[in-house]
Amino acid sequence: MADVSRRLFVKGAALGAATLSTAGILAACASEAKPAAEEPKADAEPQTQAPAADVLTPTKAPSADTASNFEAMPDSITTVGTTYENLLAAIEGETGATAKYTAYAEAADKEGFDQIARLFRCTADAEKIHIELEYNLAKEIDPATEKPEPPTIEPHGSGVNLISGANGEIYETSDMYPSFIKKAQEEDNQKAVQVFTRAKLAEAYHAERYLDAYNTIDTPSDDTYYLCPICGYIHKGENFTACPICLAPKESFTAY
Amino acid sequence: MADVSRRLFVKGAALGAATLSTAGILAACASEAKPAAEEPKADAEPQTQAPAADVLTPTKAPSADTASNFEAMPDSITTVGTTYENLLAAIEGETGATAKYTAYAEAADKEGFDQIARLFRCTADAEKIHIELEYNLAKEIDPATEKPEPPTIEPHGSGVNLISGANGEIYETSDMYPSFIKKAQEEDNQKAVQVFTRAKLAEAYHAERYLDAYNTIDTPSDDTYYLCPICGYIHKGENFTACPICLAPKESFTAY
Repeated sequence: MADVSRRLFVKGAALGAATLSTAGILAACASEAKPAAEEPKADAEPQTQAPAADVLTPTKAPSADTASNFEAMPDSITTVGTTYENLLAAIEGETGATAKYTAYAEAADKEGFDQIARLFRCTADAEKIHIELEYNLAKEIDPATEKPEPPTIEPHGSGVNLISGANGEIYETSDMYPSFIKKAQEEDNQKAVQVFTRAKLAEAYHAERYLDAYNTIDTPSDDTYYLCPICGYIHKGENFTACPICLAPKESFTAY
Repeated sequence: MADVSRRLFVKGAALGAATLSTAGILAACASEAKPAAEEPKADAEPQTQAPAADVLTPTKAPSADTASNFEAMPDSITTVGTTYENLLAAIEGETGATAKYTAYAEAADKEGFDQIARLFRCTADAEKIHIELEYNLAKEIDPATEKPEPPTIEPHGSGVNLISGANGEIYETSDMYPSFIKKAQEEDNQKAVQVFTRAKLAEAYHAERYLDAYNTIDTPSDDTYYLCPICGYIHKGENFTACPICLAPKESFTAY
């Protein structure tokens, strides 16, 4: 049974409190505050209805031992080898993803999709983080390990590119990494468990971000994407204080 | 080239204005308002940093003729027939999805995943809306059309069920419906174009909601899911005024 007692999001923190207390303040000093008080009155309906933003405030990093989304798909298509072989396979997968997203970012630029171009660039850099983590670990096992050459990618239109990206991320988060994590646990390779776990968790967020970008392809926002430099998690917008995967603070994130 | 000038989300409407003006009000009447004023001061840091919620305020329904996410996947696996045959195939697909999500909701209940159970129930009802739209149209072409029997579904764990659901929705939004829409356009069957278009757009949001639920499986929120009774769009939380697919007002939505 999963621990479902924790809440990562808190409702708008003091923003909500400030809004609630505004009514009381206005009642207490309506005459002094008239000019300021007229702003919210001008659009009174949304003032009471518009919700405060949820702010992601994680306090505990998920663990492969206890999280509820680490089961590999029943019809798994992943070939599982030793953890060293799995590291090589993961590096190859992440290298392909990096090449894809770099090409997709250029295609989005050409089509005028700024939001999508920024997301693909951010995600390409996220996958480079995974490559470095996995490559360093593989070199600990065999110092002669070399990085593969990136493939050449022919992008399609940005809509198709986003779906292609989402499909790849979903495969990695739901099948490849869960299978590799299980093997690393069997080998009691805790470093590999941690590296694969962080990548697995990040890929699922990438897929969600791709679908959001797909749904808003013609109605994009100018929200900033933020990349966690430790694990490759990507956040969209300002409403977070730390990484939900590794707890790195927002201040350490890179903006796109 | 897509029209990317439109913004569907507006930043927190009057909520932001109320928050901004609070400082002025506090300055103007600090002594009268002390008890209320202390609430925001107790957590002053987030008060200035916490963003207002984005509020989805759509004003224009997307069209298959102009939207940028209607291209079918280049490696399409969809068998395209006449629009009548495509309606039957869509009804069969949606009937399978409804049966899956109903079984997945029961599995989530048993595992104690309330957020996921609500989402699967909401999505099952969304697919029933698509079935009715497609069935009514198929009956206009052939009054003898009958609905298929739903399949029997054996659910897995909720993590796997969410991924299975997301994969199905992504296939429908990116391959099946775009292929059927293209055929309906060729046949100049505008009713079918509209029914398939709304279903296509709704499925992409369903996939995004499934990935959100997957990512927050152990840190769920108690946010309400809202189902559009016209097209099957699903919103999570309060921050919207109308359906981004068909513009139905929030007041007409069903809560889960």
